[in-house]
Amino acid sequence: MRPGFAFEESARENAARSGRLTTPHGVIETPAFMPVATYGAVRGVSPQELRTLGAQIVLANTYHLHERPGEEVVAALGGLHGFTGWDGPWLTDSGGFQVTSLADRSTLDEDGVAFHSPVDGRRRLLTPESAVQVQQALGADVAMVLDECQPPQPGQEDARSADLRQRGATERTLRWAERCRSAHTRPDQALFGIVQGGGDEALRRHSARATAAIGFDGYAHGGLGLGEARERRRELVALCNQELPPKAPRYLMGLGRPVDLLDGVAAGVDLFDCVLPTRHARHGVLFTSGGLLKLKNARFREDPGPPDPVCDCPACSTTSRAYLSYLIRSGEALGARLASLHNLRFYLRLLERARSAIAGGGFASLRAEIESQAERSAD
Amino acid sequence: MRPGFAFEESARENAARSGRLTTPHGVIETPAFMPVATYGAVRGVSPQELRTLGAQIVLANTYHLHERPGEEVVAALGGLHGFTGWDGPWLTDSGGFQVTSLADRSTLDEDGVAFHSPVDGRRRLLTPESAVQVQQALGADVAMVLDECQPPQPGQEDARSADLRQRGATERTLRWAERCRSAHTRPDQALFGIVQGGGDEALRRHSARATAAIGFDGYAHGGLGLGEARERRRELVALCNQELPPKAPRYLMGLGRPVDLLDGVAAGVDLFDCVLPTRHARHGVLFTSGGLLKLKNARFREDPGPPDPVCDCPACSTTSRAYLSYLIRSGEALGARLASLHNLRFYLRLLERARSAIAGGGFASLRAEIESQAERSAD
Repeated sequence: MRPGFAFEESARENAARSGRLTTPHGVIETPAFMPVATYGAVRGVSPQELRTLGAQIVLANTYHLHERPGEEVVAALGGLHGFTGWDGPWLTDSGGFQVTSLADRSTLDEDGVAFHSPVDGRRRLLTPESAVQVQQALGADVAMVLDECQPPQPGQEDARSADLRQRGATERTLRWAERCRSAHTRPDQALFGIVQGGGDEALRRHSARATAAIGFDGYAHGGLGLGEARERRRELVALCNQELPPKAPRYLMGLGRPVDLLDGVAAGVDLFDCVLPTRHARHGVLFTSGGLLKLKNARFREDPGPPDPVCDCPACSTTSRAYLSYLIRSGEALGARLASLHNLRFYLRLLERARSAIAGGGFASLRAEIESQAERSAD
Repeated sequence: MRPGFAFEESARENAARSGRLTTPHGVIETPAFMPVATYGAVRGVSPQELRTLGAQIVLANTYHLHERPGEEVVAALGGLHGFTGWDGPWLTDSGGFQVTSLADRSTLDEDGVAFHSPVDGRRRLLTPESAVQVQQALGADVAMVLDECQPPQPGQEDARSADLRQRGATERTLRWAERCRSAHTRPDQALFGIVQGGGDEALRRHSARATAAIGFDGYAHGGLGLGEARERRRELVALCNQELPPKAPRYLMGLGRPVDLLDGVAAGVDLFDCVLPTRHARHGVLFTSGGLLKLKNARFREDPGPPDPVCDCPACSTTSRAYLSYLIRSGEALGARLASLHNLRFYLRLLERARSAIAGGGFASLRAEIESQAERSAD
């Protein structure tokens, strides 16, 4: 990796590994979960609280910050670190995923993605070069290449068309990755490549090998969690990790449930992000040691117990299921906030436990425990 | 006052006084501001944070808690103290104001207020007796009588009709006050009477004398802040305070801006509540030492300074005007939350300063300072 960055493996259990990722703004013990700060803040949670919860690195959405306040404002105020007050490590996505999924009438060609801004309606173009330029201005410790993400499932499409579409996107992602690498000049920022290829094993392996050949500071698995079976996803991640440089950090983008994270860890992934903890929190759904707890359920109306008796988060040490359930049902902001603090702490603690387990040879039994939680949740 | 309660004056500057109100759940240094916990929580702020901000007593809306989760649920979980986790003093309103202003098709007669619940649509009746009963179940340290609150301004009404309406409401409030007093049996809860009478000096004085004759643990000024001139309001409060027992605490209900609070203190008021700090916060308006600061104003987009350089709140010590302005413009929950913490701290610190000023003979100069802030805000 470039100066100021380092990645060292500290322990291993089969393919699962723990390690330390050093960045200019701090060290991240891996495997690590990155809370998502969509609008430069993790939904109602302050940087000081994130630190207390155990967050080590935070992810920001480039697209949203580009639209408002604009990367030039963020840069003028000291980049993401100075602007938001989270002075630990940051990772930014490229903006491509949001542009294609959120912006009005986006069209994609070799040049990049053209779209109409939902903020001011003007036509804009996101290219590999501009994605890098915006991320350099935002100043995250880790930036991502612009990629083309296509869903792996054919749906109503015939298999041959789907295959062609997926191959085209994968090859374009590789060409864009080269352009991103050429455009990237900021020496204190790492740049990660992204593996695509949908659900096709050979295509994903090819994408991994070719991305590694371009050479990045780290590598991400993109385009997963879009409908493929869990077991298939785990295999694809494990196989592609074999094609990537063993000494570079690996990031599984946008996933997922606790079992999905541990699947990733088992396959050798080091970094994760997901909006699920905060999204579920807003809907009153808690991740707990007893499985998913749906606070809107009438049986919690008079339950004086803590949300999760084994949790050390601010909500579990000060509030009851009854009160939290009432706050959520009333739409009072404190409800979503306390539930978010809890769910984030659950995820951050899950990865803390994974790190300890790998060091102590107990990762397999942690996975079995979380698997059985997930089964209870299905009730 | 009843056992477990006490009120002692500790210092005085003209009619302004500081003192200590003892309740079963703690001592309140007066004059004091009570943050409003509409749904049993102060909009996104936890009890632990309220304590840090300097809150001593919190106000809850009986009507909302009666509708959801119901007073029987609150009582089963240890009353407001146990249910919410704020274990300091609580005050509850009677529910009358919310019923007449929020509920569907409310009608008022001698018996009480009939209304259709906006939650389940069923017809309900709020009487002086049921208002006391619900508040006893909620278990606040201080309960309020049910009153009939009529706006003081005649509007399109002729003056004679308005006068009759106001006299009728004032006399009914007195009859309801007697019924509340008879119905109230909870020994560890104080009951406050409410002075009404609109903008009519003689009527308000009569209401104050007659309410005092019934005999309560404390007295509130109701029906103000509904359109009368600020100077007139201050006179009415000062005159009625002369009719109330000097050793009982006095509460000015629902008011208001910083200057209004200090007007009240100057007239001898001990307790205040208002939703303005949190409501303004949600709209991005801050109370500061430089006057009102409207965060949506474009000139704050790149302002790296703290919201208020002399404030000791969590927002001012960790965040910039630029970031807070951006969070408010983006609708990110952290914005309203940090602004609420700031505005609550501003109000709580204003009353802290009033207490110190009264003790040191500097209350007049504090009032002049806040008056000049209000004038800057008008720009």
